[in-house]
Amino acid sequence: MRDAYHEELAGIGKQLVAMARMAETAIEQATRALLETDLDLAQHVIAADGTLDAVHHDLEERALELLARQQPVATELRTVVASLRMSADLERMGDLAQHVAKVARLRYPTGAIPAEVCDVIREMGQVARRMAARTACILTSRDVRMALALEGEDDEMDRLHRTLFHHLMDTRWTHGVETAVDVALCSRYYERFADHAVSVAKQVVFLVTGERAADYIDFGGTFNASGS
Amino acid sequence: MRDAYHEELAGIGKQLVAMARMAETAIEQATRALLETDLDLAQHVIAADGTLDAVHHDLEERALELLARQQPVATELRTVVASLRMSADLERMGDLAQHVAKVARLRYPTGAIPAEVCDVIREMGQVARRMAARTACILTSRDVRMALALEGEDDEMDRLHRTLFHHLMDTRWTHGVETAVDVALCSRYYERFADHAVSVAKQVVFLVTGERAADYIDFGGTFNASGS
Repeated sequence: MRDAYHEELAGIGKQLVAMARMAETAIEQATRALLETDLDLAQHVIAADGTLDAVHHDLEERALELLARQQPVATELRTVVASLRMSADLERMGDLAQHVAKVARLRYPTGAIPAEVCDVIREMGQVARRMAARTACILTSRDVRMALALEGEDDEMDRLHRTLFHHLMDTRWTHGVETAVDVALCSRYYERFADHAVSVAKQVVFLVTGERAADYIDFGGTFNASGS
Repeated sequence: MRDAYHEELAGIGKQLVAMARMAETAIEQATRALLETDLDLAQHVIAADGTLDAVHHDLEERALELLARQQPVATELRTVVASLRMSADLERMGDLAQHVAKVARLRYPTGAIPAEVCDVIREMGQVARRMAARTACILTSRDVRMALALEGEDDEMDRLHRTLFHHLMDTRWTHGVETAVDVALCSRYYERFADHAVSVAKQVVFLVTGERAADYIDFGGTFNASGS
Protein backbone atom coordinates (compact mmCIF):
# COMPACT_ATOMS: atom_id res chain seq x y z
CA MET A 1 0.00 0.00 0.00
CA ARG A 2 2.73 2.45 1.01
CA ASP A 3 4.73 1.54 -2.06
CA ALA A 4 1.74 2.26 -4.28
CA TYR A 5 1.35 5.52 -2.41
CA HIS A 6 4.90 6.64 -3.05
CA GLU A 7 4.67 5.60 -6.67
CA GLU A 8 1.54 7.70 -7.14
CA LEU A 9 3.09 10.64 -5.31
CA ALA A 10 6.15 10.40 -7.54
CA GLY A 11 3.84 10.43 -10.56
CA ILE A 12 2.23 13.64 -9.35
CA GLY A 13 5.68 15.12 -8.76
CA LYS A 14 6.64 14.30 -12.34
CA GLN A 15 3.48 15.99 -13.61
CA LEU A 16 4.38 19.15 -11.70
CA VAL A 17 7.83 19.18 -13.29
CA ALA A 18 6.28 18.65 -16.73
CA MET A 19 3.89 21.56 -16.08
CA ALA A 20 6.77 23.86 -15.09
CA ARG A 21 8.57 22.94 -18.32
CA MET A 22 5.41 23.63 -20.33
CA ALA A 23 5.08 27.03 -18.66
CA GLU A 24 8.74 27.70 -19.49
CA THR A 25 8.21 26.87 -23.15
CA ALA A 26 4.98 28.88 -23.26
CA ILE A 27 6.47 32.08 -21.87
CA GLU A 28 9.57 31.77 -24.06
CA GLN A 29 7.47 31.33 -27.20
CA ALA A 30 4.93 33.99 -26.20
CA THR A 31 7.73 36.52 -25.72
CA ARG A 32 9.17 35.63 -29.10
CA ALA A 33 5.74 35.91 -30.74
CA LEU A 34 5.28 39.32 -29.11
CA LEU A 35 8.67 40.76 -30.07
CA GLU A 36 8.86 39.26 -33.55
CA THR A 37 5.11 39.69 -34.26
CA ASP A 38 4.93 36.03 -35.17
CA LEU A 39 1.24 35.16 -35.56
CA ASP A 40 1.74 31.40 -36.02
CA LEU A 41 3.80 31.16 -32.87
CA ALA A 42 1.21 33.20 -30.95
CA GLN A 43 -1.56 30.85 -32.14
CA HIS A 44 0.56 27.88 -31.15
CA VAL A 45 1.03 29.18 -27.58
CA ILE A 46 -2.70 29.92 -27.27
CA ALA A 47 -3.64 26.41 -28.44
CA ALA A 48 -0.94 24.65 -26.39
CA ASP A 49 -2.33 26.03 -23.13
CA GLY A 50 -5.08 23.43 -23.36
CA THR A 51 -2.50 20.70 -22.72
CA LEU A 52 -1.29 22.40 -19.56
CA ASP A 53 -4.90 22.76 -18.37
CA ALA A 54 -5.50 19.07 -19.07
CA VAL A 55 -2.46 18.02 -17.03
CA HIS A 56 -3.67 20.26 -14.21
CA HIS A 57 -7.10 18.61 -14.18
CA ASP A 58 -5.58 15.15 -14.37
CA LEU A 59 -3.24 15.95 -11.48
CA GLU A 60 -6.19 17.17 -9.41
CA GLU A 61 -8.09 13.93 -10.01
CA ARG A 62 -5.06 11.82 -9.15
CA ALA A 63 -4.41 13.80 -5.98
CA LEU A 64 -8.03 13.40 -4.88
CA GLU A 65 -7.93 9.67 -5.57
CA LEU A 66 -4.71 9.38 -3.64
CA LEU A 67 -6.23 11.23 -0.68
CA ALA A 68 -9.30 8.99 -0.78
CA ARG A 69 -7.54 5.66 -1.19
CA GLN A 70 -4.35 6.13 0.81
CA GLN A 71 -5.56 8.61 3.40
CA PRO A 72 -2.13 10.08 4.05
CA VAL A 73 -1.37 12.03 7.22
CA ALA A 74 1.26 14.52 8.38
CA THR A 75 4.00 15.29 5.85
CA GLU A 76 2.50 13.10 3.16
CA LEU A 77 -0.85 14.83 3.45
CA ARG A 78 0.81 18.23 3.24
CA THR A 79 2.70 17.11 0.15
CA VAL A 80 -0.49 16.15 -1.66
CA VAL A 81 -2.28 19.37 -0.69
CA ALA A 82 0.77 21.45 -1.65
CA SER A 83 0.83 19.64 -5.01
CA LEU A 84 -2.73 20.78 -5.66
CA ARG A 85 -1.72 24.38 -4.93
CA MET A 86 1.45 24.19 -7.01
CA SER A 87 -0.52 22.72 -9.89
CA ALA A 88 -2.92 25.68 -9.73
CA ASP A 89 0.07 28.08 -9.77
CA LEU A 90 1.64 26.36 -12.77
CA GLU A 91 -1.66 26.26 -14.65
CA ARG A 92 -2.03 29.99 -14.03
CA MET A 93 1.52 30.59 -15.35
CA GLY A 94 0.37 28.97 -18.58
CA ASP A 95 -2.67 31.28 -18.70
CA LEU A 96 -0.44 34.32 -18.29
CA ALA A 97 1.86 33.20 -21.12
CA GLN A 98 -1.29 32.75 -23.18
CA HIS A 99 -2.36 36.33 -22.34
CA VAL A 100 0.98 37.61 -23.68
CA ALA A 101 0.45 35.58 -26.86
CA LYS A 102 -3.05 37.05 -27.22
CA VAL A 103 -1.62 40.58 -27.18
CA ALA A 104 0.79 39.49 -29.93
CA ARG A 105 -2.12 38.10 -31.96
CA LEU A 106 -4.30 41.18 -31.38
CA ARG A 107 -1.63 43.58 -32.66
CA TYR A 108 -0.51 41.49 -35.63
CA PRO A 109 0.99 42.56 -38.00
CA THR A 110 1.75 46.03 -36.59
CA GLY A 111 3.31 44.71 -33.40
CA ALA A 112 2.46 45.69 -29.83
CA ILE A 113 5.89 46.65 -28.50
CA PRO A 114 7.70 49.83 -29.59
CA ALA A 115 11.44 49.60 -30.26
CA GLU A 116 12.60 51.47 -27.15
CA VAL A 117 10.96 49.01 -24.74
CA CYS A 118 11.76 45.81 -26.66
CA ASP A 119 14.88 45.25 -24.59
CA VAL A 120 13.01 45.47 -21.29
CA ILE A 121 10.25 43.12 -22.49
CA ARG A 122 12.90 40.71 -23.82
CA GLU A 123 14.60 40.76 -20.43
CA MET A 124 11.28 40.17 -18.63
CA GLY A 125 10.69 37.22 -20.93
CA GLN A 126 14.16 35.85 -20.13
CA VAL A 127 13.71 36.27 -16.38
CA ALA A 128 10.28 34.62 -16.57
CA ARG A 129 11.61 31.73 -18.65
CA ARG A 130 14.54 31.23 -16.28
CA MET A 131 12.26 31.32 -13.23
CA ALA A 132 10.02 28.64 -14.75
CA ALA A 133 13.11 26.53 -15.60
CA ARG A 134 14.40 26.90 -12.02
CA THR A 135 10.96 26.01 -10.70
CA ALA A 136 11.22 22.73 -12.60
CA CYS A 137 14.69 22.13 -11.06
CA ILE A 138 13.45 23.01 -7.57
CA LEU A 139 10.54 20.61 -7.92
CA THR A 140 12.96 17.83 -8.87
CA SER A 141 15.83 18.59 -6.49
CA ARG A 142 13.87 20.11 -3.56
CA ASP A 143 16.89 22.38 -3.23
CA VAL A 144 15.89 24.92 -0.56
CA ARG A 145 18.78 27.27 -1.30
CA MET A 146 17.74 27.44 -4.96
CA ALA A 147 14.10 27.93 -3.96
CA LEU A 148 15.01 30.84 -1.68
CA ALA A 149 17.19 32.36 -4.43
CA LEU A 150 14.13 32.57 -6.68
CA GLU A 151 13.11 35.58 -4.60
CA GLY A 152 16.12 37.42 -6.01
CA GLU A 153 14.91 36.70 -9.54
CA ASP A 154 11.52 38.06 -8.60
CA ASP A 155 13.14 41.30 -7.36
CA GLU A 156 14.75 41.57 -10.79
CA MET A 157 11.33 41.16 -12.41
CA ASP A 158 9.88 43.89 -10.18
CA ARG A 159 12.78 46.16 -11.15
CA LEU A 160 12.08 45.57 -14.86
CA HIS A 161 8.36 46.22 -14.26
CA ARG A 162 9.24 49.61 -12.70
CA THR A 163 11.66 50.43 -15.55
CA LEU A 164 8.95 49.77 -18.07
CA PHE A 165 6.50 52.02 -16.23
CA HIS A 166 9.09 54.81 -16.23
CA HIS A 167 9.23 54.52 -20.02
CA LEU A 168 5.44 54.70 -20.24
CA MET A 169 5.19 57.74 -17.96
CA ASP A 170 8.05 59.56 -19.71
CA THR A 171 6.86 62.71 -21.45
CA ARG A 172 8.86 61.56 -24.47
CA TRP A 173 6.52 58.56 -24.92
CA THR A 174 5.09 59.05 -28.39
CA HIS A 175 3.23 55.79 -28.97
CA GLY A 176 -0.10 56.81 -27.57
CA VAL A 177 -2.44 55.26 -25.07
CA GLU A 178 -3.31 51.97 -26.80
CA THR A 179 0.31 50.87 -26.98
CA ALA A 180 0.97 52.06 -23.42
CA VAL A 181 -1.93 49.95 -22.15
CA ASP A 182 -0.71 46.89 -24.11
CA VAL A 183 2.78 47.28 -22.68
CA ALA A 184 1.46 47.84 -19.14
CA LEU A 185 -0.73 44.74 -19.28
CA CYS A 186 2.06 42.57 -20.70
CA SER A 187 4.34 43.82 -17.96
CA ARG A 188 1.72 42.85 -15.40
CA TYR A 189 1.43 39.36 -16.94
CA TYR A 190 5.19 38.79 -16.62
CA GLU A 191 5.16 40.10 -13.06
CA ARG A 192 2.32 37.74 -12.07
CA PHE A 193 4.02 34.82 -13.86
CA ALA A 194 7.05 35.41 -11.64
CA ASP A 195 4.87 35.67 -8.51
CA HIS A 196 3.39 32.24 -9.19
CA ALA A 197 6.85 30.74 -9.69
CA VAL A 198 7.86 32.17 -6.30
CA SER A 199 4.69 30.71 -4.80
CA VAL A 200 5.67 27.22 -6.02
CA ALA A 201 9.19 27.68 -4.62
CA LYS A 202 7.80 28.75 -1.22
CA GLN A 203 5.69 25.63 -1.07
CA VAL A 204 8.74 23.48 -1.75
CA VAL A 205 10.62 25.29 1.04
CA PHE A 206 7.72 24.64 3.36
CA LEU A 207 7.56 20.96 2.47
CA VAL A 208 11.29 20.46 3.00
CA THR A 209 11.88 22.58 6.10
CA GLY A 210 8.43 22.47 7.66
CA GLU A 211 8.65 26.23 7.99
CA ARG A 212 6.12 28.34 6.27
CA ALA A 213 7.64 31.28 4.46
CA ALA A 214 5.55 34.30 5.47
CA ASP A 215 2.35 34.59 3.46
CA TYR A 216 3.48 32.00 0.98
CA ILE A 217 0.03 31.91 -0.50
CA ASP A 218 -0.10 35.70 -0.80
CA PHE A 219 1.46 36.01 -4.22
CA GLY A 220 1.77 39.74 -3.85
CA GLY A 221 3.66 39.59 -0.55
CA THR A 222 7.35 39.67 0.20
CA PHE A 223 9.18 36.38 0.41
CA ASN A 224 10.23 36.34 4.03
CA ALA A 225 13.00 33.80 4.20
CA SER A 226 13.84 34.36 7.86
CA GLY A 227 14.73 31.16 9.64
CA SER A 228 14.30 28.91 6.65
CA MET B 1 -16.51 11.09 15.08
CA ARG B 2 -18.82 11.86 12.17
CA ASP B 3 -20.57 14.53 14.22
CA ALA B 4 -17.26 16.20 15.00
CA TYR B 5 -16.48 16.01 11.31
CA HIS B 6 -19.66 17.75 10.26
CA GLU B 7 -19.19 20.36 12.93
CA GLU B 8 -15.71 21.13 11.68
CA LEU B 9 -16.87 21.21 8.08
CA ALA B 10 -19.67 23.60 9.02
CA GLY B 11 -17.06 25.80 10.72
CA ILE B 12 -15.01 25.91 7.52
CA GLY B 13 -18.17 26.74 5.57
CA LYS B 14 -18.84 29.67 7.89
CA GLN B 15 -15.30 30.92 7.39
CA LEU B 16 -15.81 30.88 3.62
CA VAL B 17 -18.97 32.95 3.97
CA ALA B 18 -17.16 35.39 6.26
CA MET B 19 -14.36 35.69 3.69
CA ALA B 20 -16.85 36.43 0.90
CA ARG B 21 -18.40 39.17 3.05
CA MET B 22 -14.95 40.61 3.77
CA ALA B 23 -14.19 40.66 0.04
CA GLU B 24 -17.52 42.38 -0.55
CA THR B 25 -16.74 45.10 2.00
CA ALA B 26 -13.20 45.48 0.67
CA ILE B 27 -14.22 46.04 -2.96
CA GLU B 28 -17.05 48.39 -1.97
CA GLN B 29 -14.72 50.51 0.16
CA ALA B 30 -11.85 50.36 -2.35
CA THR B 31 -14.17 51.64 -5.09
CA ARG B 32 -15.35 54.47 -2.84
CA ALA B 33 -11.76 55.35 -1.91
CA LEU B 34 -10.86 55.39 -5.61
CA LEU B 35 -13.78 57.54 -6.78
CA GLU B 36 -13.83 59.91 -3.81
CA THR B 37 -10.02 60.02 -3.43
CA ASP B 38 -10.42 59.08 0.21
CA LEU B 39 -6.94 58.33 1.57
CA ASP B 40 -8.08 57.11 4.99
CA LEU B 41 -10.49 54.65 3.46
CA ALA B 42 -7.81 53.41 1.04
CA GLN B 43 -5.41 52.85 3.96
CA HIS B 44 -8.15 51.03 5.83
CA VAL B 45 -8.79 48.61 2.92
CA ILE B 46 -5.05 47.97 2.55
CA ALA B 47 -4.66 47.20 6.26
CA ALA B 48 -7.85 45.14 6.50
CA ASP B 49 -6.62 42.67 3.89
CA GLY B 50 -4.40 41.16 6.59
CA THR B 51 -7.50 39.86 8.35
CA LEU B 52 -8.73 38.10 5.21
CA ASP B 53 -5.28 36.56 4.73
CA ALA B 54 -5.32 35.36 8.35
CA VAL B 55 -8.72 33.70 7.94
CA HIS B 56 -7.44 32.02 4.77
CA HIS B 57 -4.41 30.59 6.58
CA ASP B 58 -6.54 29.47 9.51
CA LEU B 59 -8.98 27.76 7.15
CA GLU B 60 -6.12 25.96 5.43
CA GLU B 61 -4.81 24.65 8.73
CA ARG B 62 -8.27 23.51 9.81
CA ALA B 63 -8.89 21.78 6.48
CA LEU B 64 -5.57 19.95 6.71
CA GLU B 65 -6.28 18.87 10.28
CA LEU B 66 -9.70 17.67 9.23
CA LEU B 67 -8.20 15.65 6.37
CA ALA B 68 -5.63 14.13 8.70
CA ARG B 69 -7.91 13.29 11.60
CA GLN B 70 -11.18 12.39 9.88
CA GLN B 71 -9.85 11.01 6.61
CA PRO B 72 -12.97 11.80 4.62
CA VAL B 73 -13.69 10.10 1.31
CA ALA B 74 -15.95 10.72 -1.69
CA THR B 75 -18.17 13.80 -1.45
CA GLU B 76 -16.82 14.83 1.90
CA LEU B 77 -13.25 14.73 0.65
CA ARG B 78 -14.20 16.79 -2.40
CA THR B 79 -15.90 19.33 -0.14
CA VAL B 80 -12.75 19.86 1.91
CA VAL B 81 -10.52 20.14 -1.15
CA ALA B 82 -13.00 22.51 -2.83
CA SER B 83 -13.01 24.61 0.35
CA LEU B 84 -9.25 25.01 0.08
CA ARG B 85 -9.64 26.21 -3.51
CA MET B 86 -12.52 28.54 -2.71
CA SER B 87 -10.56 30.00 0.18
CA ALA B 88 -7.67 30.75 -2.19
CA ASP B 89 -10.12 32.46 -4.59
CA LEU B 90 -11.64 34.58 -1.84
CA GLU B 91 -8.23 35.54 -0.46
CA ARG B 92 -7.23 36.64 -3.95
CA MET B 93 -10.40 38.73 -4.26
CA GLY B 94 -9.23 40.59 -1.15
CA ASP B 95 -5.81 41.16 -2.77
CA LEU B 96 -7.47 42.62 -5.86
CA ALA B 97 -9.59 45.01 -3.77
CA GLN B 98 -6.35 45.98 -2.03
CA HIS B 99 -4.74 46.70 -5.43
CA VAL B 100 -7.60 49.08 -6.27
CA ALA B 101 -7.11 50.81 -2.90
CA LYS B 102 -3.37 51.12 -3.63
CA VAL B 103 -4.10 52.97 -6.87
CA ALA B 104 -6.36 55.34 -4.85
CA ARG B 105 -3.53 55.89 -2.35
CA LEU B 106 -0.90 56.38 -5.05
CA ARG B 107 -2.89 59.11 -6.83
CA TYR B 108 -4.04 60.95 -3.71
CA PRO B 109 -5.01 63.80 -3.65
CA THR B 110 -5.27 64.27 -7.43
CA GLY B 111 -7.43 61.20 -8.00
CA ALA B 112 -6.81 58.39 -10.49
CA ILE B 113 -10.12 58.33 -12.35
CA PRO B 114 -11.16 61.08 -14.79
CA ALA B 115 -14.78 62.28 -14.67
CA GLU B 116 -15.90 60.63 -17.92
CA VAL B 117 -15.04 57.11 -16.77
CA CYS B 118 -16.20 57.47 -13.15
CA ASP B 119 -19.60 56.01 -14.00
CA VAL B 120 -18.11 52.89 -15.59
CA ILE B 121 -15.73 52.33 -12.67
CA ARG B 122 -18.60 52.90 -10.23
CA GLU B 123 -20.64 50.29 -12.08
CA MET B 124 -17.72 47.83 -12.09
CA GLY B 125 -17.46 48.38 -8.34
CA GLN B 126 -21.18 47.71 -7.93
CA VAL B 127 -21.11 44.55 -10.05
CA ALA B 128 -18.04 43.31 -8.14
CA ARG B 129 -19.65 44.06 -4.77
CA ARG B 130 -22.88 42.33 -5.82
CA MET B 131 -20.99 39.28 -7.11
CA ALA B 132 -19.15 38.95 -3.79
CA ALA B 133 -22.45 39.31 -1.91
CA ARG B 134 -24.06 36.62 -4.08
CA THR B 135 -21.01 34.41 -3.57
CA ALA B 136 -21.66 34.61 0.19
CA CYS B 137 -25.34 33.66 -0.43
CA ILE B 138 -24.38 30.81 -2.75
CA LEU B 139 -21.95 29.44 -0.16
CA THR B 140 -24.73 29.46 2.43
CA SER B 141 -27.65 28.29 0.30
CA ARG B 142 -25.83 26.07 -2.19
CA ASP B 143 -28.35 27.41 -4.68
CA VAL B 144 -27.20 26.06 -8.06
CA ARG B 145 -29.51 28.33 -10.04
CA MET B 146 -28.03 31.39 -8.33
CA ALA B 147 -24.52 30.04 -8.82
CA LEU B 148 -25.11 29.56 -12.55
CA ALA B 149 -26.62 33.06 -12.78
CA LEU B 150 -23.34 34.52 -11.54
CA GLU B 151 -22.01 33.91 -15.03
CA GLY B 152 -24.44 36.55 -16.30
CA GLU B 153 -22.99 39.04 -13.86
CA ASP B 154 -19.52 38.20 -15.11
CA ASP B 155 -20.64 38.91 -18.69
CA GLU B 156 -21.77 42.32 -17.46
CA MET B 157 -18.33 42.89 -15.95
CA ASP B 158 -16.64 41.93 -19.23
CA ARG B 159 -18.92 44.36 -21.07
CA LEU B 160 -17.92 47.17 -18.68
CA HIS B 161 -14.25 46.24 -19.13
CA ARG B 162 -14.64 46.61 -22.90
CA THR B 163 -16.53 49.91 -22.52
CA LEU B 164 -13.71 51.28 -20.41
CA PHE B 165 -11.12 50.25 -23.00
CA HIS B 166 -13.11 52.03 -25.71
CA HIS B 167 -12.86 55.21 -23.63
CA LEU B 168 -9.11 54.77 -23.27
CA MET B 169 -8.56 54.14 -26.97
CA ASP B 170 -10.79 57.04 -28.02
CA THR B 171 -8.83 59.75 -29.79
CA ARG B 172 -10.64 62.25 -27.55
CA TRP B 173 -8.90 60.81 -24.48
CA THR B 174 -6.99 63.79 -23.05
CA HIS B 175 -5.74 62.43 -19.75
CA GLY B 176 -2.46 61.06 -20.92
CA VAL B 177 -0.78 57.72 -20.54
CA GLU B 178 -0.33 57.55 -16.77
CA THR B 179 -4.05 57.89 -16.12
CA ALA B 180 -4.89 55.47 -18.94
CA VAL B 181 -2.60 52.84 -17.41
CA ASP B 182 -4.14 53.38 -13.93
CA VAL B 183 -7.64 52.97 -15.35
CA ALA B 184 -6.66 49.91 -17.41
CA LEU B 185 -5.08 48.19 -14.40
CA CYS B 186 -8.06 48.97 -12.13
CA SER B 187 -10.35 47.58 -14.80
CA ARG B 188 -8.27 44.42 -14.89
CA TYR B 189 -8.46 44.12 -11.08
CA TYR B 190 -12.28 44.29 -11.17
CA GLU B 191 -12.40 41.78 -14.01
CA ARG B 192 -10.21 39.32 -12.13
CA PHE B 193 -12.21 39.86 -8.92
CA ALA B 194 -15.32 38.78 -10.85
CA ASP B 195 -13.50 35.75 -12.34
CA HIS B 196 -12.62 34.49 -8.86
CA ALA B 197 -16.23 34.91 -7.71
CA VAL B 198 -17.33 32.80 -10.69
CA SER B 199 -14.69 30.22 -9.80
CA VAL B 200 -16.18 29.89 -6.29
CA ALA B 201 -19.68 29.55 -7.75
CA LYS B 202 -18.50 26.83 -10.16
CA GLN B 203 -17.06 24.85 -7.30
CA VAL B 204 -20.37 25.06 -5.44
CA VAL B 205 -22.17 23.81 -8.56
CA PHE B 206 -19.74 20.94 -8.79
CA LEU B 207 -20.17 19.99 -5.14
CA VAL B 208 -23.96 20.04 -5.36
CA THR B 209 -24.50 18.43 -8.77
CA GLY B 210 -21.33 16.37 -9.03
CA GLU B 211 -20.94 17.83 -12.49
CA ARG B 212 -17.87 19.78 -13.24
CA ALA B 213 -18.63 23.00 -15.10
CA ALA B 214 -16.18 23.02 -18.01
CA ASP B 215 -12.78 24.25 -16.95
CA TYR B 216 -14.08 25.47 -13.66
CA ILE B 217 -10.56 26.11 -12.52
CA ASP B 218 -9.71 28.03 -15.68
CA PHE B 219 -10.84 31.49 -14.58
CA GLY B 220 -10.58 32.80 -18.08
CA GLY B 221 -12.80 30.15 -19.63
CA THR B 222 -16.47 30.21 -20.46
CA PHE B 223 -18.84 28.93 -17.86
CA ASN B 224 -20.34 25.95 -19.60
CA ALA B 225 -23.52 25.19 -17.71
CA SER B 226 -24.70 22.44 -20.02
CA GLY B 227 -26.42 19.67 -18.17
CA SER B 228 -26.11 21.19 -14.73
